[in-house]
Amino acid sequence: MCGGDGPHSYVRNSSYQKAAIECAKGKIKEAVLEKLDLFHMRSDLSTFKVADFGCSVGSNTIDTIQNIIETVKLKYQQRNIKIPQNHLEFHVFFNDKLNNDFNSLFKNVSRSIYKHCFIVGVPGSFYDRVLPRNTINIGHTSYALHWLSKVPQDVCNKKSSAWNKDSIVCSDLVEEVSNAYKVQFKKDMGDFLGAREEELVPGGLLIMSGMYLPNSVPMAHTWKGVAIDMIGDCLVDMANSGILSKEKVELFSLPLYFPHMSELEVVKQNERFSIEVFERVIHPMEGLPLTNDFIASLYRAVFHGLIEEYFGDGVVDELFDRYATKLATCSIDFQSRDKVLQYFIVLKHNVH
Amino acid sequence: MCGGDGPHSYVRNSSYQKAAIECAKGKIKEAVLEKLDLFHMRSDLSTFKVADFGCSVGSNTIDTIQNIIETVKLKYQQRNIKIPQNHLEFHVFFNDKLNNDFNSLFKNVSRSIYKHCFIVGVPGSFYDRVLPRNTINIGHTSYALHWLSKVPQDVCNKKSSAWNKDSIVCSDLVEEVSNAYKVQFKKDMGDFLGAREEELVPGGLLIMSGMYLPNSVPMAHTWKGVAIDMIGDCLVDMANSGILSKEKVELFSLPLYFPHMSELEVVKQNERFSIEVFERVIHPMEGLPLTNDFIASLYRAVFHGLIEEYFGDGVVDELFDRYATKLATCSIDFQSRDKVLQYFIVLKHNVH
Repeated sequence: MCGGDGPHSYVRNSSYQKAAIECAKGKIKEAVLEKLDLFHMRSDLSTFKVADFGCSVGSNTIDTIQNIIETVKLKYQQRNIKIPQNHLEFHVFFNDKLNNDFNSLFKNVSRSIYKHCFIVGVPGSFYDRVLPRNTINIGHTSYALHWLSKVPQDVCNKKSSAWNKDSIVCSDLVEEVSNAYKVQFKKDMGDFLGAREEELVPGGLLIMSGMYLPNSVPMAHTWKGVAIDMIGDCLVDMANSGILSKEKVELFSLPLYFPHMSELEVVKQNERFSIEVFERVIHPMEGLPLTNDFIASLYRAVFHGLIEEYFGDGVVDELFDRYATKLATCSIDFQSRDKVLQYFIVLKHNVH
Repeated sequence: MCGGDGPHSYVRNSSYQKAAIECAKGKIKEAVLEKLDLFHMRSDLSTFKVADFGCSVGSNTIDTIQNIIETVKLKYQQRNIKIPQNHLEFHVFFNDKLNNDFNSLFKNVSRSIYKHCFIVGVPGSFYDRVLPRNTINIGHTSYALHWLSKVPQDVCNKKSSAWNKDSIVCSDLVEEVSNAYKVQFKKDMGDFLGAREEELVPGGLLIMSGMYLPNSVPMAHTWKGVAIDMIGDCLVDMANSGILSKEKVELFSLPLYFPHMSELEVVKQNERFSIEVFERVIHPMEGLPLTNDFIASLYRAVFHGLIEEYFGDGVVDELFDRYATKLATCSIDFQSRDKVLQYFIVLKHNVH
């Protein structure tokens, strides 16, 4: 993600994610009120601990955490739970990868912090353990699990039949490429759940929002697939103009993957969590027109860091100038393409 | 502090602090082995929680934390404490002010992290609460408490008799200035202990290293006092050259204060902690020659951020060029000046 708060920053260009999070707010509130069982949670109730896994730097994580905190407070009131001689305190754990801009995150969070609420930053991949056992009462992750722990190895291997030569994303048009991504997704989701299982207290909730595809729809047929493919086309154009190495472009794939519905079964197979909610939510921006400006800003903010890391400094400006031009000249009707769908899942860590 | 790892960064110019921390290592080990009472600590022993308050960005905090972790492990072995079916895990809380460079800290820490040890960053002034109640088993602070929460108000007030017009530090030569700093120090130390009292579990240890002056010695007579006064002289020179505003220089004082021995009584007066250790330690660099280069590098790294924040960008280079020249031409024998002394204090949070 692009840190700071400049015109191309994630914080100023995450309205799509924000809309999705707004939509999830009501669902989260409902889930916490219905599913959080304070009396059977094995945990000291005087400090309630919440973590956001893959928080990035911006206002989305703050809104979500505030929503959870307010709902938990309400739940304490409803259950008439009093902390003797004291206030209920919250400990909030903001997790993201080591290269996340935690300095910006802390500055953003500090402006909107609650009383009796203490925040910390947790650097590290959420596909590993990042917190001690039995730390968290509610874990949350939103629009983060489509970022794999890495690009599947074979996808960047010239000698492999899974080499993703002609695309920068899993288009679902080449079976070997899809299989490589599927294997990675399954491993990653298993690792994520395994780590969270240890970090959550028994009775704790894990709330997950993310994106998936209907079983019959390849990524290449969705508006996101088409839009991302066009970034790949621009990279190829830059290679043809001699600005980038052709080989480097051919070996580039994103660690990004939207699973098909059937692949989400891996969530259900984990025996240490019970499934409390498992449903599709409608993205509130699904009906809105997807303008070229919106798409260009969105993907610039999202891919900036990855592209700079792989291709080096100075590529991003040129790439997204070309991207804006291509979007304008191709005049694709993104609205008519297939949609990427959203899941909302709530798991409860079983009390043994 | 100057973040990052460039030539003027704190991380590359904190050898003085490092030497002091090396010296404290043995003392910390001794204190943890002798004073930590695992059986009477009101806390889940499967996760041991350590915090460093005022950690900055560098290797000093990492060395200290590793020392504490190794000693706690040894203590668990000695007491034959086993965590059923699991390993002992550590949760380490690195605290510093919001403007600390946590991104650099995380990168530095991630290179030397232990297995079963989870780290978080805690932004916020340690003169306030920064963690929930009953979080920490061992709290530590080293060479941080001489940074006051703020410059005492009257010291920067032209109309006050405590206006510190002719110095940038509390030289102890003007009684009203000294009193203003004394009041602020007492309040700050009280706030620090009050906050830690809540954050430490009953039975938890608070380990404090820092600097003080013998009752009879004014700051102006110590090598640090002389060296810092010379920075003030350079600021005045820059004002006289028209580079800085004269008024701005006259209104500048550092939020820095070394208490006299008698002022440390405030630590003993807190009834919620028992005094386990309260002693002077000899700084291992006390006998070494204090070279001009060393002094210039030390204070550039330490004051960089404060000076830039107050006077704006571009002042630091010029100031420390002038400082190096002044140090060279004045040829002061720093070695012959009075020394700032070091305290090592261990408190135990009373079990009620």
